[in-house]
Amino acid sequence: MPLDHFSIIESTLREGEQFSTATFTTAQKLEIAGLLDDFGVEMIEMTSPLASSQSEADIRAVVAAGLRPRILTHVRCKREDALRALDTGVQGIDIVIGTSPQLIKNSHGKSIPQIIAEASEVLACIRQQAPNIILRFSTEDSFRSRESDLLRVYLAIADLGFVDRLGVADTVGIATPSRVSALVGQLVRLTSLDIEFHGHNDSGCAIANAYAALEAGATHIDTTVLGIGERNGITPLGGLIARLYTLDIAYVCKYNLRLLPQIDRRVAEICGLAIPFGNYITGASAFIHKAGIHAKAVLADPATYEAINPADFGLTREISIGHRLTGWNAVRRRAEDLGLALDDAVVQRITRQIKERAHDQPLSLDEVDALLRAEGVA
Amino acid sequence: MPLDHFSIIESTLREGEQFSTATFTTAQKLEIAGLLDDFGVEMIEMTSPLASSQSEADIRAVVAAGLRPRILTHVRCKREDALRALDTGVQGIDIVIGTSPQLIKNSHGKSIPQIIAEASEVLACIRQQAPNIILRFSTEDSFRSRESDLLRVYLAIADLGFVDRLGVADTVGIATPSRVSALVGQLVRLTSLDIEFHGHNDSGCAIANAYAALEAGATHIDTTVLGIGERNGITPLGGLIARLYTLDIAYVCKYNLRLLPQIDRRVAEICGLAIPFGNYITGASAFIHKAGIHAKAVLADPATYEAINPADFGLTREISIGHRLTGWNAVRRRAEDLGLALDDAVVQRITRQIKERAHDQPLSLDEVDALLRAEGVA
Repeated sequence: MPLDHFSIIESTLREGEQFSTATFTTAQKLEIAGLLDDFGVEMIEMTSPLASSQSEADIRAVVAAGLRPRILTHVRCKREDALRALDTGVQGIDIVIGTSPQLIKNSHGKSIPQIIAEASEVLACIRQQAPNIILRFSTEDSFRSRESDLLRVYLAIADLGFVDRLGVADTVGIATPSRVSALVGQLVRLTSLDIEFHGHNDSGCAIANAYAALEAGATHIDTTVLGIGERNGITPLGGLIARLYTLDIAYVCKYNLRLLPQIDRRVAEICGLAIPFGNYITGASAFIHKAGIHAKAVLADPATYEAINPADFGLTREISIGHRLTGWNAVRRRAEDLGLALDDAVVQRITRQIKERAHDQPLSLDEVDALLRAEGVA
Repeated sequence: MPLDHFSIIESTLREGEQFSTATFTTAQKLEIAGLLDDFGVEMIEMTSPLASSQSEADIRAVVAAGLRPRILTHVRCKREDALRALDTGVQGIDIVIGTSPQLIKNSHGKSIPQIIAEASEVLACIRQQAPNIILRFSTEDSFRSRESDLLRVYLAIADLGFVDRLGVADTVGIATPSRVSALVGQLVRLTSLDIEFHGHNDSGCAIANAYAALEAGATHIDTTVLGIGERNGITPLGGLIARLYTLDIAYVCKYNLRLLPQIDRRVAEICGLAIPFGNYITGASAFIHKAGIHAKAVLADPATYEAINPADFGLTREISIGHRLTGWNAVRRRAEDLGLALDDAVVQRITRQIKERAHDQPLSLDEVDALLRAEGVA
């Protein structure tokens, strides 16, 4: 079952660097790579050495740090790029070339036979020079490519025997889980190679698509911290963790989950971003329970309305009771926590007071406590 | 095909009000409802009149405004709640009761036969008093409920002939698209009723699950503006629009798409929130193209790397060229836009300068233009 042995290809230092406000210094790249190592990701993907001389130097610096994750770089399907990538000492090279009519027309202008011929040459060159390097071939914009073109390309490349992994990429963020499942499932049936999924989030399915890929047999998922990347980014690391955790915590117990809040916070800080209020696991509201019915049940047993235990990530829940939607059961529980003995009728009257006073502005917990203490006998 | 006639149940004034920082005044509720009417949502769901006297007054105020969307309220499966809801003059009542072992234990304590008996009585009472009201029955926490319990409840309720719509709710945000598809598909086959999907986003699948529900035959999807709701919320209105738009703009052309940025902005402002950087369509980065390869292709044809045309939402794209990952094709295009005639070799040299100077901090467009103008002949 792939879910028991999938790998994360953490691409904050490649896809993430393509986010509008991301400009990582060498020291920041080393720091992020170190955090990702501590978290336990299996692979770290870095920007092509051809992007700038600094990009090349940064790959060398991260490789030299001797971290546990394999260090990969992501380059165009060109001999020049492959040779520069090999020269950096990376442990893996990710080759990509567009196969959709849009990318063929506006990016490289090559036909499908030309793509196959060039890829064959580039992959042969890499494999010859580096028999043990981890080698991936991916199409770009796979989900706007013709299915027949995809299969021609993938089957030709698989047949060469040079690559370890095939990549499928939802480059413009249009794929649905059922389409991802169909394409990945097909590649699993037709080849014996590892399969990687890279999914953009323009239509909000990047996490669901990554999960659909794993269900269909994919072995590798690309993520970035907070999902940063071109446009609105890709599958977020924390979002993938949340998805898998809620299905079975065993899928993610190989990672150091308590480090996730620090990783999200640090990358947000470096990029000058606020962590989105509704972010998976680490957003400010992720573990706040508000409606009276919810608060009452969570006080009895948090699992009633929580699929994720915040304590597993070193976080705490908040039960909000000083607002208009509060309920008397939640207020009674607070009175009990304060050691106050109050009749139900009194708690119900105080609850009505809270609801009225909270009309324009919620009461703080101190204000609620003061109302309770004014009536209660400790 | 359900996608041609689905309805949005916009629940910002119910689920959204359960978001930690949401405290809407009557005037704000009227303003939000007005914006949602202008956008074109089919239904607006409001907090139960039992939550507070103000909640009740607010329902009456929004009903009195005579908007085009049907006004619904969402109440517990209790006779008292139903009568109070009827008294407000709403056009629809959404009844909900928990069916999962967790909610049976920690919320209401009723057995499945008791749930069926009570729901039958409450629904009969509503139908008797309001033969034409739109009546929905939903289980709560459907995806942690036993399938046999769900079917017993839904089939008993459908058989009564009182309700127009059955709801399924992923209350703790654990469902996968394949599970949503299976449950909704089953209800579509077994009943002739409309089917509504309400999905929380704890594991990042709220948009994909809503789409899976529509694919399987659901007729109604719950949304809130920016996805606000309990914990990290539910399917966001803009996210659902993005999902459907990228499949076929015809699915969403019934809505006033250009109003979406104003709606997201206004609700964020009222709740004291920042719109998340990567928000669907309206996030700051949604239409920024950065990597050189992307910028070059988008300059030739935006559709190369854009599944959504920002102009359809009254927004503009940004092609970022003053950073380390820029490319000379993108810089050349900028020179052309400025009316400058530059040799390729000069553009390539300027591009190298930009990459070096942008090492720590990207250059502004003005700075890039200054470099180009210093070399160019207009």
